[in-house]
Amino acid sequence: MRTIVAIGIGTGNPAHLTTQAIDAMRSLDIVLLLDKGTDTDDMRALRTNMLAEHRGGDLPEIVTIEDTPRDPELAKRDYRAAVAEWHERRANKISDVIREKLDDGGVAGFLVWGDPSLYDSTLRMLERVRETGQVFEVRSIPGIAAPMALCAAFAIPANRVGEPIHITTGRKLPGTAPELLRNCFVMLDGECAFRDVASEDTEIYWGAYLGDAREILIHGRVGDVGAEIAEARERARAEHGWIMDTYLLRAP
Amino acid sequence: MRTIVAIGIGTGNPAHLTTQAIDAMRSLDIVLLLDKGTDTDDMRALRTNMLAEHRGGDLPEIVTIEDTPRDPELAKRDYRAAVAEWHERRANKISDVIREKLDDGGVAGFLVWGDPSLYDSTLRMLERVRETGQVFEVRSIPGIAAPMALCAAFAIPANRVGEPIHITTGRKLPGTAPELLRNCFVMLDGECAFRDVASEDTEIYWGAYLGDAREILIHGRVGDVGAEIAEARERARAEHGWIMDTYLLRAP
Repeated sequence: MRTIVAIGIGTGNPAHLTTQAIDAMRSLDIVLLLDKGTDTDDMRALRTNMLAEHRGGDLPEIVTIEDTPRDPELAKRDYRAAVAEWHERRANKISDVIREKLDDGGVAGFLVWGDPSLYDSTLRMLERVRETGQVFEVRSIPGIAAPMALCAAFAIPANRVGEPIHITTGRKLPGTAPELLRNCFVMLDGECAFRDVASEDTEIYWGAYLGDAREILIHGRVGDVGAEIAEARERARAEHGWIMDTYLLRAP
Repeated sequence: MRTIVAIGIGTGNPAHLTTQAIDAMRSLDIVLLLDKGTDTDDMRALRTNMLAEHRGGDLPEIVTIEDTPRDPELAKRDYRAAVAEWHERRANKISDVIREKLDDGGVAGFLVWGDPSLYDSTLRMLERVRETGQVFEVRSIPGIAAPMALCAAFAIPANRVGEPIHITTGRKLPGTAPELLRNCFVMLDGECAFRDVASEDTEIYWGAYLGDAREILIHGRVGDVGAEIAEARERARAEHGWIMDTYLLRAP
């Protein structure tokens, strides 16, 4: 049997790696890397450095799979068909790599930012690869997820005593019921969607590059720090070429 | 300055420790342990073994603080007053220990199951201790939280594509809006509250002792496996003297 393992590596701090993730990295015969054309050199370097450090310099083969997204022409005519075509094309490419590169008993891995269960497509994608007829075992190694890294950076609990916690995306935030904004984490928000949703009095804890040397943390009332966050975000993204950020909203 | 660090240790699998958590364990002059009278020998052993393993057998002093909860007589007359009295008593005890045991520059730590931000009282409690007048820095080290460990055990994403995620407690589950049950993690549920809330067709992923040798995983429709989960939970709790479990509900 061949194995494909999704390894959660945390939010960019190499010290977020669990010993389980380190062991999994050491077990890899090949590393699979999806290249959407958006990864920057330092995002790639971070992963390569983690592998090198924990494998004593013995890097496994890193197989880069070009992940060109949906066909823009087809997407205009039929969005769902374009997404389906993209996913099928990607699954076929991964399937080909597994067949060509992975012997029986071999282990391939994806290094996943944060945790593989939280707004990451790797596990779903591997289900698609299975549908191509490839037979393999899937393992998932939990990682430090962005909401936990954010709370740790501020040394705060995720919620007020006993209250529920909501996790959503920038795209879904506008449709979120007001009572869910009491303890609401937002991920994948490139537009600072909180500005259209949160009251001036809502507290926001915002963090970017969590646990990394570039870490930025801003906390305050949305009315006081909202604009500052949007500016800091744009400036940092321009400077580093990429940004990964998340925030917690605490409505009064 | 003295430092108190809340170290997330994951859900019971020693391999959930991050290298940051291991470094923090090594930095400790004393370990603070709240004893509510409910910890069993193997819960204590798990933490002691982690410390011993990563400190080469050099165990720091472990200071046990008896955490006798609210006065039952006072709670009957005035519940809020009883809780306030309990919290103040606990803060004073911790404050005394810090004053007596921790020199300037010293580091004390709590080993926290899962992640310190998620339904854990350590960080809130340390705010209370500060209110007694003690001056110290608080640090929080993120850990593998139960929802992530659960998803990893089943190798599943937390949510359906792009959907929000809800995290709540067994006590709050009955008041949860039906649409939030689409991707809903439940923690701290001693009563299998899902039986009163979830439809027969809701999928449930249930896990106990996640990542531990005793791990139990059950997945299926609530209508098919609900009773099985309740029975497995009771049996395991009776056998091991304690149980830590969590589950994910996925309503259709």
